Amino acid sequence: MTDAKQQVHDAARRARVAAATLALTPRAAKDEALKAMADALVAASAEIIAANDKDVVAAREAGTGENVIDRLALDEGRIAAFADGVRDIAALPDPIGEVVRGSTLPNGLRLQQIRVPMGVIGMIYEGRPNVTADAAAICLKAGSAVLLRGSSSASESNTAIIKVMREALAGTSIPPDSIQQIAADDRASATHLMQARGLVDLVIPRGGAGLINAVVSESTVPVIETGVGNCHVYVDADADLDMALDIVINAKTQRNSVCNAAESLLVHKAVADTFLPRVVAALQKQGVTVHGDPSFCAIDGDVVPATDEDYATEYLSADISAKVVESLDDAVDHIRTFSSGHTEAIVTSSLAASRRFTMGVDSAAVMVNASTRFTDGGEFGFGAEIGISTQKLHARGPMGLPEMTTTTYVVTGSGHVR
Amino acid sequence: MTDAKQQVHDAARRARVAAATLALTPRAAKDEALKAMADALVAASAEIIAANDKDVVAAREAGTGENVIDRLALDEGRIAAFADGVRDIAALPDPIGEVVRGSTLPNGLRLQQIRVPMGVIGMIYEGRPNVTADAAAICLKAGSAVLLRGSSSASESNTAIIKVMREALAGTSIPPDSIQQIAADDRASATHLMQARGLVDLVIPRGGAGLINAVVSESTVPVIETGVGNCHVYVDADADLDMALDIVINAKTQRNSVCNAAESLLVHKAVADTFLPRVVAALQKQGVTVHGDPSFCAIDGDVVPATDEDYATEYLSADISAKVVESLDDAVDHIRTFSSGHTEAIVTSSLAASRRFTMGVDSAAVMVNASTRFTDGGEFGFGAEIGISTQKLHARGPMGLPEMTTTTYVVTGSGHVR
Repeated sequence: MTDAKQQVHDAARRARVAAATLALTPRAAKDEALKAMADALVAASAEIIAANDKDVVAAREAGTGENVIDRLALDEGRIAAFADGVRDIAALPDPIGEVVRGSTLPNGLRLQQIRVPMGVIGMIYEGRPNVTADAAAICLKAGSAVLLRGSSSASESNTAIIKVMREALAGTSIPPDSIQQIAADDRASATHLMQARGLVDLVIPRGGAGLINAVVSESTVPVIETGVGNCHVYVDADADLDMALDIVINAKTQRNSVCNAAESLLVHKAVADTFLPRVVAALQKQGVTVHGDPSFCAIDGDVVPATDEDYATEYLSADISAKVVESLDDAVDHIRTFSSGHTEAIVTSSLAASRRFTMGVDSAAVMVNASTRFTDGGEFGFGAEIGISTQKLHARGPMGLPEMTTTTYVVTGSGHVR
Repeated sequence: MTDAKQQVHDAARRARVAAATLALTPRAAKDEALKAMADALVAASAEIIAANDKDVVAAREAGTGENVIDRLALDEGRIAAFADGVRDIAALPDPIGEVVRGSTLPNGLRLQQIRVPMGVIGMIYEGRPNVTADAAAICLKAGSAVLLRGSSSASESNTAIIKVMREALAGTSIPPDSIQQIAADDRASATHLMQARGLVDLVIPRGGAGLINAVVSESTVPVIETGVGNCHVYVDADADLDMALDIVINAKTQRNSVCNAAESLLVHKAVADTFLPRVVAALQKQGVTVHGDPSFCAIDGDVVPATDEDYATEYLSADISAKVVESLDDAVDHIRTFSSGHTEAIVTSSLAASRRFTMGVDSAAVMVNASTRFTDGGEFGFGAEIGISTQKLHARGPMGLPEMTTTTYVVTGSGHVR
């Protein structure tokens, strides 16, 4: 075993020991620890900012774009914000111990399915250092130890944040090994983490499609895939076209770099003549490039002809693919073919159409007369969100605290045998 | 792409088309199809038995043991029994459409989390041909298409059973491509199935540890791991020793080849003097070989000294490992170290001990004063069981119809934008 692999496995073993204690820890002790972490993060702002400066300098030297540097950079306000996030998680109900199902069996056995901690969760993520505090807090509240493997570009910041959180835990009843950093200096450390089957119970990748695909194909630990959103808005024959226009513009332009932004517009042929000129003009006014089928191209010379690659693309930019469909079923077929299974929206006044669309598409969330931008743990009232699952196993859609747990069946008898 | 891979992918694509229809199919139509399948299986008994005879002859020629052949062989009674199983599944409630969570958000959006079909499920299994009918019926009732990859040893039987079921579907509104066979003549077909990411939504392996490990490490499709059970019975300081004796004997000997049979006995030192002689004598009377620690070895010369390998072994035979522990926490530590996470039992009169044990061990099911043998979909009242999950993601413990589904969030507004 290589040193790097040994280090990851040793960390995972310490995490398992910590997890065994965490599983027996009542809510009050977890909340107290979270509040201590939040206070410590604020108190250590200067130290964290100093570490973050090193990451920012290195990023600038590497020629990183200013928009990425803006997301990386921390100041007192941002640290206070993520400390507040940790306090918000402390205020959420404890998912552990919830009785999911319960009944008494005919033979008198009492059956209860109870929410229990996952155990050890591995997070492999890119980008902003606030994820470090957020993921640690969510996992701890859900009773699990966490191994945090951030990106090397935020390595100094993550190291400082994790050090502060662990020191805060040392003054509580929660073992500091509940939160551990997996060093990002070695590319292989992520691979060792995702292949530590038996030591790590779950791996969650957060980042771009490249990272997620690498984790999905190389991991032997169960994975929850997050995030890629090729989201559609379908404007039905029975749509209120003013509403449709509002929703398309909001879904595409309110924030175009996020996974729940719309990337593709489908319009029923019955309303194409009326709606296409309006929507193309409105999108273009917002600076959006429309990549359309021949019907859309006929509207305006600035519409770019769309290819199948356009329909399959999550632009994350001021672009949208667009197509006229023959029927609602055609829209569903198109979405089943091209969607990443994140969020689809239908605009319609027809109950039958909304029902057929919601049953027909195969995505984590379906909006009826609402913007795709509402697929979000905060908007859904979950209070905390570790990501949005686009897979079907375990959790689908925004993942809050319950999705970070598993269950066990507790069966109580009085000497029952078969 | 090889021909074998092409065949698996083509089958999966046809299954996806069928799944899109199945997702819109109401319960009554699914139940009618299941009843037609059951009737057809009974009507085709002679044909199925003739195919099964070929498998049995081939197995005998290959020198297969008679106990395995007994499980492979079909007769009219066995076919009637699995047809009845299909009818029982038709009688179960439809999991699809169940509202798992629902609320109205502060902004007036109506949020519902609804059970929807998984899509396309791949089953990779060994052994008895009744699994073929059972898995097909469970997947169909849960609204999913299924790709069945049985073992080559049951290939003729499986082919006949699948042919009969598909012909039965042809007379109903369910597409026959909802049930398809993946040929077992090529070892690689299982690999192609578990790597058809994007075409197959879930793979469930059922069989021995070798099969399950191969699927877990090679699959890129999400997997639910089933079955391995290194189950423990812990006799606490506060146990009713008569009850403990009944439970140990039942858990070990009622049927020792199944995953929920006990494989290891832990006894608190406070009751060792009284209990060890009784339990060793009772186990030996039932023909069980005890592999024990020095305390057990001191009881009787026929007790074999146990190694760590014994404690880690799922015997599936008339053997049990045994150890005296210093405390309940020691028992929990031992179980956390050696268990496969299937089922553990505690025998105790102490509420505090039962609580600490159930919260401390980390397994799919925990029995308090009951035999490990109760971990079973039938015993739990689920009506149907596709296997027992020993992983923490998605489903843990016996898996019934709800565990074969996923969910989607349906969010209804009146033109809501952010």
